[in-house]
Formats: sequence, structure tokens, C-alpha cells
Amino acid sequence: MTDPRKALVVPPGRDWSLADVDPRDTSLVGDKEKAKERLAADADSIAEWQEKLFAERRHALLVILQGTDTSGKDGTIRGVFGRTGPMGLAVTAFGRPTPEELAHDFLWRIHAACPRRGLIGVFNRSHYEDVLVGRVRKLADPETIERRFRQIVEFEEMVASSTTILKIMLHISKDEQRERLRARLDDPEKTWKFDPGDVEDRRHWDEYQAAYQEVLVRTSTKIAPWYVVPADRKWARNALVAGLVRRTLEDMAPRYPKPDFDPADIRID
Amino acid sequence: MTDPRKALVVPPGRDWSLADVDPRDTSLVGDKEKAKERLAADADSIAEWQEKLFAERRHALLVILQGTDTSGKDGTIRGVFGRTGPMGLAVTAFGRPTPEELAHDFLWRIHAACPRRGLIGVFNRSHYEDVLVGRVRKLADPETIERRFRQIVEFEEMVASSTTILKIMLHISKDEQRERLRARLDDPEKTWKFDPGDVEDRRHWDEYQAAYQEVLVRTSTKIAPWYVVPADRKWARNALVAGLVRRTLEDMAPRYPKPDFDPADIRID
Repeated sequence: MTDPRKALVVPPGRDWSLADVDPRDTSLVGDKEKAKERLAADADSIAEWQEKLFAERRHALLVILQGTDTSGKDGTIRGVFGRTGPMGLAVTAFGRPTPEELAHDFLWRIHAACPRRGLIGVFNRSHYEDVLVGRVRKLADPETIERRFRQIVEFEEMVASSTTILKIMLHISKDEQRERLRARLDDPEKTWKFDPGDVEDRRHWDEYQAAYQEVLVRTSTKIAPWYVVPADRKWARNALVAGLVRRTLEDMAPRYPKPDFDPADIRID
Repeated sequence: MTDPRKALVVPPGRDWSLADVDPRDTSLVGDKEKAKERLAADADSIAEWQEKLFAERRHALLVILQGTDTSGKDGTIRGVFGRTGPMGLAVTAFGRPTPEELAHDFLWRIHAACPRRGLIGVFNRSHYEDVLVGRVRKLADPETIERRFRQIVEFEEMVASSTTILKIMLHISKDEQRERLRARLDDPEKTWKFDPGDVEDRRHWDEYQAAYQEVLVRTSTKIAPWYVVPADRKWARNALVAGLVRRTLEDMAPRYPKPDFDPADIRID
């Protein structure tokens, strides 16, 4: 698999259209068997890099996952980070804000959950909900949404002083979402994942796509670019996300630190 | 493997001696190959139970891991929870308290990290450090240590109203610790784990064993009993801990919740 970053990135400051991304595209990963092999190798590699990141404690990695309901955020986390040591991973799922969270600015809960140096943080949904559902469901007025766009870009630049930020949107088709919602309803062990509100959100499908289009283009920056991953095929999705994460860690290139003592000098009785 | 709980528990309110536990004992798990099979099966089973715990959101499980330096707390977490979905697991490592943590009572940071309903929380060290290192290194006076014992028991009883608490001490021998410290010094990829303070703590070995003896006997309660796991052999240790966790989840018996709607009524266009 060649580096998927160039193909998947939303180029900062340039024209780009979400509608041009085919959610069923698997051309970057080859066939299913090959993709699964790549995923396994990259998941191992991610676990190894994470050890070094943790040992070095100089930088953090923050992976932000966005996508409509059923786009596969949970499954991606399990697939990509399933081999990473639980000590080095901090996963945060952002749901509907609590009263306490609403009593603060919208970035308050986000900032509090940012990973400290040495960790990989994963956000399952994020502050981007505040400019997506916030806009589509009219939870905030247009001026507030505008201000949030600016605040998000400034915020991420600051966070990037200690943290590499990798923003990934999982892109599924409307047909695929129908299949997945149906599957949740038909399997008693999955019905708990079904939220009747998802059907309501589905009625706003086109508005959400338009909101994503704007978010992706306006907040893909050099320091924190967006990548859009075709996600109708779970095996392709996992291989692509693992490829993005592995290569990002490779570029960060953490190393085991040198001790400030000579190991040969230490006596243990 | 028969239920290891009866053999490993520190019986609440009864005589018991840490010195009677042989850190090299593997009799409960059989040979290495069998232990690894059990571990794999139990790790899968833990992952399945965790899904139900998460879906039901009625209870949490808190696993508290204690043990001297190099007793294998990190390796245990990786081995036992390596197959558990990262979304459902919250691991917290407690190190030397920060100035902000010291500005609060000793249970403040502990309480904040307790898992919410639906999660498995794992504590790598815990409030027990405050009655272990606190006593051996004389960081607190005897009256304070006494008070903490009482406060810990009361605190855990309260936490247990939403959370099943499983307290596990990993018990290694002094010889095994020497081997492991030496191994860290001899392997450049492990030297970062070596803290010169560990050698200093090792000089207080007997005092720490005495402190553990007191902690285990005084804080093993019906609602939050201690289990002591022989931990010189990593494969036996992991199999035993996984067995304790799997059986605890089995007793909690979480179930997928029934939806409050009829799935057949839901139309998805």
C-alpha cells in the first residue's frame, strides 16, 4: 500500500469536494486479504511506536474520529488500536454535553481530555459536533458557528505545541447507513446501540453532508489536516486508518530516551 | 483451572500471612502451555462480558493492582485486557502526587478516576500507596496512617454502591526483583523503565512486606476483598489475574438491555 495520506487529505486552502469521495472505494488497499494483512502489520507497528512515545514522553498523538452515525468509529478504534497497550491509550467518547459541560465554553471538555505527552489520545466524536449538529439542528446561531470555526483553528494550533493532531472523517454512503441501522434493529445483541434519534438525523442527511463539506474545507490546516476515509467497507476503512496512524507515528519518530546514569554503575544487592 | 478466588483471597477478619504465599507457586494453573490457553480464553471472555457491561450501563468494575516495583503491573494489564475494546477500559496509573493532588485529600485523585457505570477501570497503583510508601518512607505520621485505613474502608464501601471492586496484589520474591531490575539495566530498550529510586526502595524490602501484610489484613473486606497472586512466573500471574477478573464479571452477569421500543416498528427510509 502506497502512502494513503496524499490521496485522502483535504488539501488546506484548496478546492475540494466531499461528493467526489466514493465511500465504496477500495483502490488504495487492494483486496480484502491483503488489507487485513496490512492492518495486522500496522496495528503491531502502532503498538511498538506507542511504547517509544510513552518512554520518551516528549509528544502526544491525538486522533480525532468523526463520521455520521454507524460510520464505524467504535469498530475502527477496536481494529486499529486493538494491539496497543491499554496504558498508553486514552479514548474519550463525546456524547450530548452534560449540564456541567454546557455551563462552560464548548472547548472546555475537549481540552480537559487532550492526551498528555507520551500518550495516544483518541476522540470518538469531538468539538466538531458543535459545528455539525450545532448547525444542522440549529442549536447555535450562525454567528456562534462562525466564531467556533475560528476558535477551533486557533485552539488546535495551540494544542499542536505538544501534540500531533490527526483528524479523520469516516465517510459512508446513505445506503450503507440504512443497512447498518437495520442490522442493529435485527440483532438483539446490537439493538442497544440503536438510538431512535439516529433515524431523525438521517432525515437531515444532505444537510449533514453540506455541513461536513464546510467543516472539512475550513478546518483542514497545515498543522492539523483532515483525511477522509472511504468507510463503506470495514476492512478497507481499518487498513486505511491504521496506515494513516502508523505513518504519522513514523514521522514523529519517538525514541527510547538515554538514561542520565550509566547502567553499569548501578549495583543491586 | 478451578476457581482461584478461594485459594488467593485474604479472608476478611481472619488470620492470614503474606509470608505463607510462595511467589513461585504455579499449582493453581497447571503447566505453562495450559496457562496460556486459559489466559487467551479468559481474555476473550472478559472482552465479551465488557461489551454487555457497557451496553447495560448499570455497574462498573474497578480492578486495583498493587505490588512492589517490577511486580508486573503493566504486563498484567496488557496480558489480561489486551483483547478488551479500548472504549470500555479506563486505565489510570498513579505516580508521585502532583502539587495539585497534594493540595487535596489523598482520596481526591482516586475518586476522580473511578470508572463510571459501564466501564472497567484499572488502577495501576492506587490509594494504597498512601499507607504503604507513606508508612515505610515516613511521609505521614502514624495517626494519619491509622486514619487513612479507616477512610479507605469507608470510601470503598461507598464506591461499591455502583462498582464491583477487585483488589489484587502481585507478589514477587526479592530474588525475582533483582533479576528484573538487572534486565532493565541490561536492555537499552528497557532502561527508561529503571528508576534509581527503585534500588532505594529495595533496601526497605522487609518493611514493605510488613506494610503489605498489615494493609492486606486490615483492608480485605467482604465488599472489597484482596487477592494475592504469586507473580514470579509471568504466565501463571496473567492466567490467575484473568481468572479472577473473568469470574468476577460472570458473577456481575451484565446483560444486553431490552429496548424500550419495538424494533419492528422502526422504519428506515
